[in-house]
Amino acid sequence: MQQNLETFLGCDNSYEESSIVIFGAPFDSTTSYRPGTRFASKKMRAESYGLETYSPSQDLDLEDESIKIFDAGDIELPFGDPTQALKMLENFSTEILEDKKIPLMIGGEHLVSLSGIRAAHKFFEDLSIVHFDAHTDLREEYLGVRFSHATVIRRAWDLLGDGKIFQFGIRSGLREEFQFAKEHTSLQKFDFTNLEKVFGKRVYLTIDLDVLDPSIFPGTGTPEPGGVSFLDLLKSALQVIQNCDVVACDLVELSPPYDPSGNSTAVALKILREMLLALSQK
Amino acid sequence: MQQNLETFLGCDNSYEESSIVIFGAPFDSTTSYRPGTRFASKKMRAESYGLETYSPSQDLDLEDESIKIFDAGDIELPFGDPTQALKMLENFSTEILEDKKIPLMIGGEHLVSLSGIRAAHKFFEDLSIVHFDAHTDLREEYLGVRFSHATVIRRAWDLLGDGKIFQFGIRSGLREEFQFAKEHTSLQKFDFTNLEKVFGKRVYLTIDLDVLDPSIFPGTGTPEPGGVSFLDLLKSALQVIQNCDVVACDLVELSPPYDPSGNSTAVALKILREMLLALSQK
Amino acid sequence: MQQNLETFLGCDNSYEESSIVIFGAPFDSTTSYRPGTRFASKKMRAESYGLETYSPSQDLDLEDESIKIFDAGDIELPFGDPTQALKMLENFSTEILEDKKIPLMIGGEHLVSLSGIRAAHKFFEDLSIVHFDAHTDLREEYLGVRFSHATVIRRAWDLLGDGKIFQFGIRSGLREEFQFAKEHTSLQKFDFTNLEKVFGKRVYLTIDLDVLDPSIFPGTGTPEPGGVSFLDLLKSALQVIQNCDVVACDLVELSPPYDPSGNSTAVALKILREMLLALSQK
Amino acid sequence: MQQNLETFLGCDNSYEESSIVIFGAPFDSTTSYRPGTRFASKKMRAESYGLETYSPSQDLDLEDESIKIFDAGDIELPFGDPTQALKMLENFSTEILEDKKIPLMIGGEHLVSLSGIRAAHKFFEDLSIVHFDAHTDLREEYLGVRFSHATVIRRAWDLLGDGKIFQFGIRSGLREEFQFAKEHTSLQKFDFTNLEKVFGKRVYLTIDLDVLDPSIFPGTGTPEPGGVSFLDLLKSALQVIQNCDVVACDLVELSPPYDPSGNSTAVALKILREMLLALSQK
Amino acid sequence: MQQNLETFLGCDNSYEESSIVIFGAPFDSTTSYRPGTRFASKKMRAESYGLETYSPSQDLDLEDESIKIFDAGDIELPFGDPTQALKMLENFSTEILEDKKIPLMIGGEHLVSLSGIRAAHKFFEDLSIVHFDAHTDLREEYLGVRFSHATVIRRAWDLLGDGKIFQFGIRSGLREEFQFAKEHTSLQKFDFTNLEKVFGKRVYLTIDLDVLDPSIFPGTGTPEPGGVSFLDLLKSALQVIQNCDVVACDLVELSPPYDPSGNSTAVALKILREMLLALSQK
Amino acid sequence: MQQNLETFLGCDNSYEESSIVIFGAPFDSTTSYRPGTRFASKKMRAESYGLETYSPSQDLDLEDESIKIFDAGDIELPFGDPTQALKMLENFSTEILEDKKIPLMIGGEHLVSLSGIRAAHKFFEDLSIVHFDAHTDLREEYLGVRFSHATVIRRAWDLLGDGKIFQFGIRSGLREEFQFAKEHTSLQKFDFTNLEKVFGKRVYLTIDLDVLDPSIFPGTGTPEPGGVSFLDLLKSALQVIQNCDVVACDLVELSPPYDPSGNSTAVALKILREMLLALSQK
Repeated sequence: MQQNLETFLGCDNSYEESSIVIFGAPFDSTTSYRPGTRFASKKMRAESYGLETYSPSQDLDLEDESIKIFDAGDIELPFGDPTQALKMLENFSTEILEDKKIPLMIGGEHLVSLSGIRAAHKFFEDLSIVHFDAHTDLREEYLGVRFSHATVIRRAWDLLGDGKIFQFGIRSGLREEFQFAKEHTSLQKFDFTNLEKVFGKRVYLTIDLDVLDPSIFPGTGTPEPGGVSFLDLLKSALQVIQNCDVVACDLVELSPPYDPSGNSTAVALKILREMLLALSQK
Repeated sequence: MQQNLETFLGCDNSYEESSIVIFGAPFDSTTSYRPGTRFASKKMRAESYGLETYSPSQDLDLEDESIKIFDAGDIELPFGDPTQALKMLENFSTEILEDKKIPLMIGGEHLVSLSGIRAAHKFFEDLSIVHFDAHTDLREEYLGVRFSHATVIRRAWDLLGDGKIFQFGIRSGLREEFQFAKEHTSLQKFDFTNLEKVFGKRVYLTIDLDVLDPSIFPGTGTPEPGGVSFLDLLKSALQVIQNCDVVACDLVELSPPYDPSGNSTAVALKILREMLLALSQK
Repeated sequence: MQQNLETFLGCDNSYEESSIVIFGAPFDSTTSYRPGTRFASKKMRAESYGLETYSPSQDLDLEDESIKIFDAGDIELPFGDPTQALKMLENFSTEILEDKKIPLMIGGEHLVSLSGIRAAHKFFEDLSIVHFDAHTDLREEYLGVRFSHATVIRRAWDLLGDGKIFQFGIRSGLREEFQFAKEHTSLQKFDFTNLEKVFGKRVYLTIDLDVLDPSIFPGTGTPEPGGVSFLDLLKSALQVIQNCDVVACDLVELSPPYDPSGNSTAVALKILREMLLALSQK
Repeated sequence: MQQNLETFLGCDNSYEESSIVIFGAPFDSTTSYRPGTRFASKKMRAESYGLETYSPSQDLDLEDESIKIFDAGDIELPFGDPTQALKMLENFSTEILEDKKIPLMIGGEHLVSLSGIRAAHKFFEDLSIVHFDAHTDLREEYLGVRFSHATVIRRAWDLLGDGKIFQFGIRSGLREEFQFAKEHTSLQKFDFTNLEKVFGKRVYLTIDLDVLDPSIFPGTGTPEPGGVSFLDLLKSALQVIQNCDVVACDLVELSPPYDPSGNSTAVALKILREMLLALSQK
Repeated sequence: MQQNLETFLGCDNSYEESSIVIFGAPFDSTTSYRPGTRFASKKMRAESYGLETYSPSQDLDLEDESIKIFDAGDIELPFGDPTQALKMLENFSTEILEDKKIPLMIGGEHLVSLSGIRAAHKFFEDLSIVHFDAHTDLREEYLGVRFSHATVIRRAWDLLGDGKIFQFGIRSGLREEFQFAKEHTSLQKFDFTNLEKVFGKRVYLTIDLDVLDPSIFPGTGTPEPGGVSFLDLLKSALQVIQNCDVVACDLVELSPPYDPSGNSTAVALKILREMLLALSQK
Repeated sequence: MQQNLETFLGCDNSYEESSIVIFGAPFDSTTSYRPGTRFASKKMRAESYGLETYSPSQDLDLEDESIKIFDAGDIELPFGDPTQALKMLENFSTEILEDKKIPLMIGGEHLVSLSGIRAAHKFFEDLSIVHFDAHTDLREEYLGVRFSHATVIRRAWDLLGDGKIFQFGIRSGLREEFQFAKEHTSLQKFDFTNLEKVFGKRVYLTIDLDVLDPSIFPGTGTPEPGGVSFLDLLKSALQVIQNCDVVACDLVELSPPYDPSGNSTAVALKILREMLLALSQK
């Protein structure tokens, strides 16, 4: 008899043979409004059995011989200590990148992305960030805290500087944040217009799922009406993967407590499946 | 004083005078992922009083003199015994068809459709199936079971053979199922393109409501993002009714436990009302 | 130390300096199907802190110096006595109008709008009503009751007469109501086509939020599939404010018990913010 | 084929042969805090199929030949018009009492009890009231309204006068109400001590289910911790039925929206079954 | 890096060294009223991390060196085919019993217990059943089906015969079932009186958690008010384990969809922990 | 017109005249299992209007002339920074204590109690702690974090030392924690036996509401079956207040997201009302 393994559907390969490594970052200590993203990776893993492994649009299957993905489970993180949590996550991504694999982190709140960006930047000095989100996340600090879901892209800018951050779908923030973006990042309000400007770059792709309209993605902490459609997000994510050198990525801000029907989890899983299939073709 | 009758809104005519007979098939024993469709017909009947009987788009009213519909209530079915349940449902539809009336069955899981298809096929050898769904439902077996929600259209094909099954809106399944469809059915991925190919046929119309996008129809067992809109489904259903000889039909896979706001029930009811009004004009 | 003030986000100015006055009308005694709108204003006030004060589309901020709004809290109303409740609300709006300010009432069920219409009509004889809704609300009576959510626009017509009522987005009602509308009001089915016909008028703007599609606005008592999108409603509401003389307005029929994810509240709040910003520019 | 009857489990006898008549009073317009009792009778009827007809403690079965109960369904009442609603309900009870049958009304809010008390008092001048409740319900008026869930027992006192009202389980109210009770009613705080004082009387028995502790009965509008146990309530209700001449009774204040697990409905149904069985032995 | 293991808290030993084997039987196809027990084992495993491994009452810890438990995960069962599901589960228990270990099965609906009883009876001819439940489960058939949650103890009697079945806590069933029990089983109504009569026997212990009062255990398909307390059940289960030769056991009928606060899952887990600790001392 | 004040029911006095000051500490960043206590104070304040101000058991009323309580609202705290949050809360309590008033803090997670203990200890060197809880909270660290809900009483011991901490109702923890308690605190397992040992002391009273059984208090992050009853807790809390010199106190760990019926909030409010009335008599 075997012990009980639990992996994302179709992600049951060994670490050595895999080119992509998924892991969960169940952390939401800095979430100021409605917590719950800590439950995302566990819920997604459990619900992934409601999904098929085959994609009719890409005509690829997670069970195809050539597709090898490893699920490393969730990292146990210290609630209430964001500095330490970021450090642990950065170390984890670093280990994966050292082995020439692509880390795909499942949040958790958006702050966790900073760990992946830091890790990737150590390996790739020319790293750019492609950022899909409803919110600017460009505050200098939030409630007196410098490391927060609301400041994460600003902290990334501290590291990467001007001209490296490309934001899409943004529809909420302070006036100061939009002004900061005008000078220091490339910010596309409301949608994915001019996405092709990132093609060809070496990229960390971070997808805050609240970029979606709340009608299709209710399960998030800070819903922001007027968002993009499921098909728009899916198409744009695949375009980035197919036209850039994506070295690491994440999917954050699914909050299962605000998803009573489970449909937001289904949305996150379908985007994850399509991303994995596209990444595996690189 | 009278005993307490409970019927779908406006479906309180006598059996004899009615041309359409609605009934519930509260069965979901083979549902593998999330059960609950057994509650659909009862919930729809109870909530139908939140709907108006009048349709502003068709300018018809369920209370118009010329429109006569009978609600036969729900059939009590043996949970855990799909073979027997199908038999009981088939007998019920057969009785209605013998009386030259149109049976409209409210599921339950999609397997129940097989009962109606079998009954209709006894009367109409040239029967075609028009199948709206997110899923192919073409498996040869599922978890070792041949009669299942995931195999129902395959079982229909066993009966009807090639060239008789027309599938629309399909966006999920095994690679083998899509390959089977290429050889044996007409399968339209994602939408209702080329719906007119079914016009003029004698038709069993089966609508798995998960063909809708989960944003408008969260209340179903296996949500599949990227679906059709409410207006697309409504228009397509009415086109089939208005342009084909629909001899029997069903509406399946509403699952009230996953519909906390009740909106999926409202969607199912509005589609039901419009279908009843259109069917009554034949 | 200060006592605990609770206002809508950014609406913490003094009454004297403000040009707009928000208040809640927590009343739903005549709701026949699913009650709950009584909780709307309190829930919106509490959740308003999840919203930003800045609007990227209007480039205005509720905290801008020039924008002054007063939140008067909720009026305590006698449940079960609609006549008295309407009287109390009418008096409250009257007081605001006397001070040359714009009352913006948060329902509550749609019946509360009648109080604002009565108050505004006392000041403006040429008053027109712009009515966004899924339902006609033109019944002469409902379950034997003349003052009801289902009769509110008919009662307004009793007061204003022909040619003064402009209805948009309507998709549900009795056949008689649509016939009444043909003779006595201007009714646009399903959408906002020809909205410009109201431009230039002196207007009471009443928005029943169930005009929205239930996918984006599940949290309402009588969901009606096939509705308008969030962006359509937002654009239309702003066009009315920018092109008419809006003397009073309301936002009604949010029902928090049917909004488990809180997204309907977020939708209502974002529309409220945009309306306040636009009204403050007059 | 037969039309769809829906009755409380085992209450499907004809009116003529029955000695007890159940009916629903789906009204909650004066509920000031959390509405929802309007859904109680419909929910109870639907869920009654999860209950057995046999009582192991009384060794009686609702299907026994000698037990005849008629379910008259729900009365359609005008929301927002308590005066008219009470009139309609009083007429209904009167009709049952004229036929020498026992009316058992399912609320709705507690105000509906006044209709039954008025009807019974017309037939029985010596009528007493046995009142199980967490709340005194003795206010002279509530929010300016004289006919309200919070005043119902005071209105009964207006009719019956001193010495006729026996209250048990009371643990909440204004100081004035407790003072009023000292002079005009018999009020037992917290439990059923001295219940035998009512034995032998002709009685209207009104059970506000919030007399139960919220642990076993969460589904009510105004939960009041520190209540009686299920077995205490059951025993006390049966003692009243077995030792008094109960001429009419009711069961009120189940609020299904606050009963997510359905257990409060199960509690109400089991108490109803036991009461019906005991009443049928008189 | 390691693949993601998921076990019940503290049950992560190897099969070989373990004396107890836990596994899930996620099956509820014959559930007639409210399904959902299929989710119990998965939910319990996930939530077990909210529990401590240490028991202050037994002063034992699941992490003590001497306590070795293996979690075999869930068996994938064919929904809609109870006969085949029972066969697969029987084979699984047989394998464990052959290795001289104690199987502890987590249901699923009560029917799954039959598999364990059959397996244990092959090894132990003198097997008795200790049955804690709200329901008799002694029907000869249910809705025409012989293998059902409502017939499971009757099927066990078919196998074991008179004098072998000891039922406690029973408070619901048909009159015929209670009569059958008088002749063929030992049935204690309502509580655990005379539990000592089973001491010394070789026992299959089956605990239907709905024996608990719904106040403490709302999360079950068929709630039955008037049940035993948590401490009564715990004490009785431990007494059976400590005073009998328990060769196999199960814990069934937790239904997570009816447990919105998660407390029923916590109850099931705490009983499981205490049972495991007590079993490990044999 | 007045701005919208929102206070706990009956706590609307001025700061100066009040002897008790309530405030909320909406913080749960270190909660490791299920967050949500951040919402407690806001929810309690909003729901307090469902409660009466009068206590039939104490025959006191929050509106009595002699009872003066000030509600200071909620303190805005930096999520993700427990050290800073504790500092801010300590300063707030210190200010109240300086003015010779009793601070009553509404959590939030249990860590917040440390702020009040620190503040009180500055004024009262002989301070003891009376601690009602299901959990020991005596860990040296938790997931590498020293300031956590699971370590709070250990941190208090760091400050106060042996012989000053009195724990009641405890039924969960590590074996090490129970061993620590044997040497350093007075720990009563499961109930309030020997409560009188604290009488006469100068006391900080901290009530973790999860000491209650989950049947009556489901709304908490870490439910622990087998707890005390509502009446036991109420009686014990009042005994401490009446027999000790309570200089500060708190009520923590209500988590509204796990309280779908609102009853846990009602329990917390009723305990709060009784505590306030008893404290006001000192």
